[in-house]
Amino acid sequence: MTSQIEERVRIRPGVSGGVTPDRCYYLLSGPYSTALGRLSTAQQALLHRLAREPVPAQELVEQDLSLLRREGWLQATVTWSGTDVYTVEPEGPQHPIAGEMPEDLVLSRYAVARRDGSAMVLESPRSWCRVRLHDSRALAWLGLPRPADDDVPALRRFRRDLWAGGLAVARAGDEDDRSPTWRPHELWFHRRSRRPLPGVPYGKGDWAAGRPVPHAALREPFDGEVVELARPDLSRVRAGDPGLTTVLEQRRSLYRYDASNPMTAAELGEFLYRCSRNRNVPRTDGADYVRRPYPSGGALYELEIYPVIRQVHGLEQGLHHYDPQRHRLERICGATPEVRRLLRTAAAATGHEEPQVLLVIAARFGRVMWNYQSMAYSLIMKNVGVLFQTMYLVATAMQLAPCALGGGDSTAFAAATGLDEMDEGSVGEFALGSLPRGAAR
Amino acid sequence: MTSQIEERVRIRPGVSGGVTPDRCYYLLSGPYSTALGRLSTAQQALLHRLAREPVPAQELVEQDLSLLRREGWLQATVTWSGTDVYTVEPEGPQHPIAGEMPEDLVLSRYAVARRDGSAMVLESPRSWCRVRLHDSRALAWLGLPRPADDDVPALRRFRRDLWAGGLAVARAGDEDDRSPTWRPHELWFHRRSRRPLPGVPYGKGDWAAGRPVPHAALREPFDGEVVELARPDLSRVRAGDPGLTTVLEQRRSLYRYDASNPMTAAELGEFLYRCSRNRNVPRTDGADYVRRPYPSGGALYELEIYPVIRQVHGLEQGLHHYDPQRHRLERICGATPEVRRLLRTAAAATGHEEPQVLLVIAARFGRVMWNYQSMAYSLIMKNVGVLFQTMYLVATAMQLAPCALGGGDSTAFAAATGLDEMDEGSVGEFALGSLPRGAAR
Repeated sequence: MTSQIEERVRIRPGVSGGVTPDRCYYLLSGPYSTALGRLSTAQQALLHRLAREPVPAQELVEQDLSLLRREGWLQATVTWSGTDVYTVEPEGPQHPIAGEMPEDLVLSRYAVARRDGSAMVLESPRSWCRVRLHDSRALAWLGLPRPADDDVPALRRFRRDLWAGGLAVARAGDEDDRSPTWRPHELWFHRRSRRPLPGVPYGKGDWAAGRPVPHAALREPFDGEVVELARPDLSRVRAGDPGLTTVLEQRRSLYRYDASNPMTAAELGEFLYRCSRNRNVPRTDGADYVRRPYPSGGALYELEIYPVIRQVHGLEQGLHHYDPQRHRLERICGATPEVRRLLRTAAAATGHEEPQVLLVIAARFGRVMWNYQSMAYSLIMKNVGVLFQTMYLVATAMQLAPCALGGGDSTAFAAATGLDEMDEGSVGEFALGSLPRGAAR
Repeated sequence: MTSQIEERVRIRPGVSGGVTPDRCYYLLSGPYSTALGRLSTAQQALLHRLAREPVPAQELVEQDLSLLRREGWLQATVTWSGTDVYTVEPEGPQHPIAGEMPEDLVLSRYAVARRDGSAMVLESPRSWCRVRLHDSRALAWLGLPRPADDDVPALRRFRRDLWAGGLAVARAGDEDDRSPTWRPHELWFHRRSRRPLPGVPYGKGDWAAGRPVPHAALREPFDGEVVELARPDLSRVRAGDPGLTTVLEQRRSLYRYDASNPMTAAELGEFLYRCSRNRNVPRTDGADYVRRPYPSGGALYELEIYPVIRQVHGLEQGLHHYDPQRHRLERICGATPEVRRLLRTAAAATGHEEPQVLLVIAARFGRVMWNYQSMAYSLIMKNVGVLFQTMYLVATAMQLAPCALGGGDSTAFAAATGLDEMDEGSVGEFALGSLPRGAAR
């Protein structure tokens, strides 16, 4: 045991390398690569050791291979008194913060610490590295106190590494002022959804092969009363249909309705049929794809529509599920307090009246997450937008009043339906009703 | 100083209360409320003290007001040896985990610790509470060690509170298996975007009043060469336009092209004009709204289109910005390695050839975040989906080959454009080209 600080480096996981025919060495991982050129025998030996085991960091300097570190190929573990305290794990080339380290540091408002396996990891969407904390002393230091601890050499080193990684910032810095508008959950999500990382699976993958699909293409039915919906004759619809450009240019958000001439059950049937019916019987060979009029990533169609009926001629008030295969509604409940809350929240979102029909869009998350990684939820959000515009255009062509809502309360939906939000939860809301008087197009 | 554990409770911020005419007390905050009924003089006195200052927890029991705690109206601070160690802050009614606490606890994979003001806060999308850590000893305990520390009474208490809050789970539990598919960044984002919380601003707000809009409606131009685009005659387009239903039902994702008859500059001009031109000159009275053919939350239109031209008759290869007000392209750069990488990534996303045109959709985040809170990024994702479907339908009507991509690499876009991703970053990709031979509709 020694009370000294030691630093050992090794090539991080997921990096591969090789030698070109003219004996130039290179390393690569994901979109990054570094050409090392020709290496001396001692350099070659060090490179091979770095791939195999932790090596004292000073050997990089001795062998003139500090480039490996700057380009982000090495993870570095700091040891104090013989114990591993933390490891700096690059996610790409280093972008160390320039300038002198300020005395008064705080954690970046974007840094999050969480458990990853058996260790805690500190990461930030603004950093080029993660820091893995092996020791509870390092955890305690996340508070970054200045006082007595300052004479602990390992803490000084830790502070410097967090600063260089952008994980800690000057207390007096302008981080909060400069970007008052990104919330931490938003920036973290953005980076994890939009930046493929070494060692983190991204996009469509076959990791789920062999696992059962968490949800079949056809949702199991609710056991309430079934309400058959009218099917429009599509050839008749086509004959009287306005042109695409006419509809696109005419579309407007409308959130007032004609209460004396509310929407009808037939209109709701036609609307749902044109937007969101299943056009085929799903294949049953495992993957279980369907087709609907709107496009959906991977043809998985994770979205389900739950119409909340407030005022529709021919339909009872309450919450329903739309079965897109059989084109009918399954009644879940009447105008319970939770259902009323969904309508109130929708009215608050537009600042106007409660819609005649509120279409709550829910996702069966597992259908997408089973196949897509890291960007699955972001894909679901885009699918909701695709469905929104489909609804807007069909409503415009049908002379109805459409309005997509900007946000909603998925807790209220879970309470109204009794669904487990981890399995299926609401992700979008669309308000619909009859055109207000005088607004005929 | 005492080495004992003490617990003090007080009504959490953002709670209001009152008395009905028949002298019944109630508390309310956001969507939650609790009726307390009539209160004794001693109970009234305690309620008033709880609103003012921390009160020893046992007084709740003595005055028969434990209901206040169960319903989530109180935050509870645990003190050890006279020092505040942590505070449990409910976000709604308590949903304590049932059953006996297991010996072997670990932090939930969904729990994140981050700095909030001057303290660290531990939160989880699966919990009904946040835990604010006042003391670096509590931080060190996040590693949740079992051994020697187990005889520290405050740690035992801490472990029990994390367990009851769903922030810690049994190591041998099924959390990882049950929901292998939610990534921590996704679930956190979902809850924060979809569950309005007490004390956390949500949705459209006037908090930005008085602050300057971070981005004007019209993006400042790039200073490269300007390429004027053809403007279609909309009345002629309307005359030859297929009907909405025909287009909706015909739409398919296509990711192969006819290289011998590539898209033309005139087609790209018509496509962008029909999808995404500005239809008005923005108002300049502060808020600076515009209108485009596709709908966008709050009429803020934060999305910008960056066409990457690979093969278009009449246009040079390279990265451009589409100016929706003047309907023209501003050239940013040619086929640099970063631009090539954008095309390669797009081809990898479809598994087929590089598109003739890759439309990279970027967001000027501040325009939405300036006005919407907590759900701003989620709204931007939905806007991307709305634009996707608009592009799909216009491309289908124009006999082009359209395909929205599921994800992309915003780092590559930042490298290609030199833009600061905190201000403006890529959020969507759409592949476009001429119909492959034999695919005429």
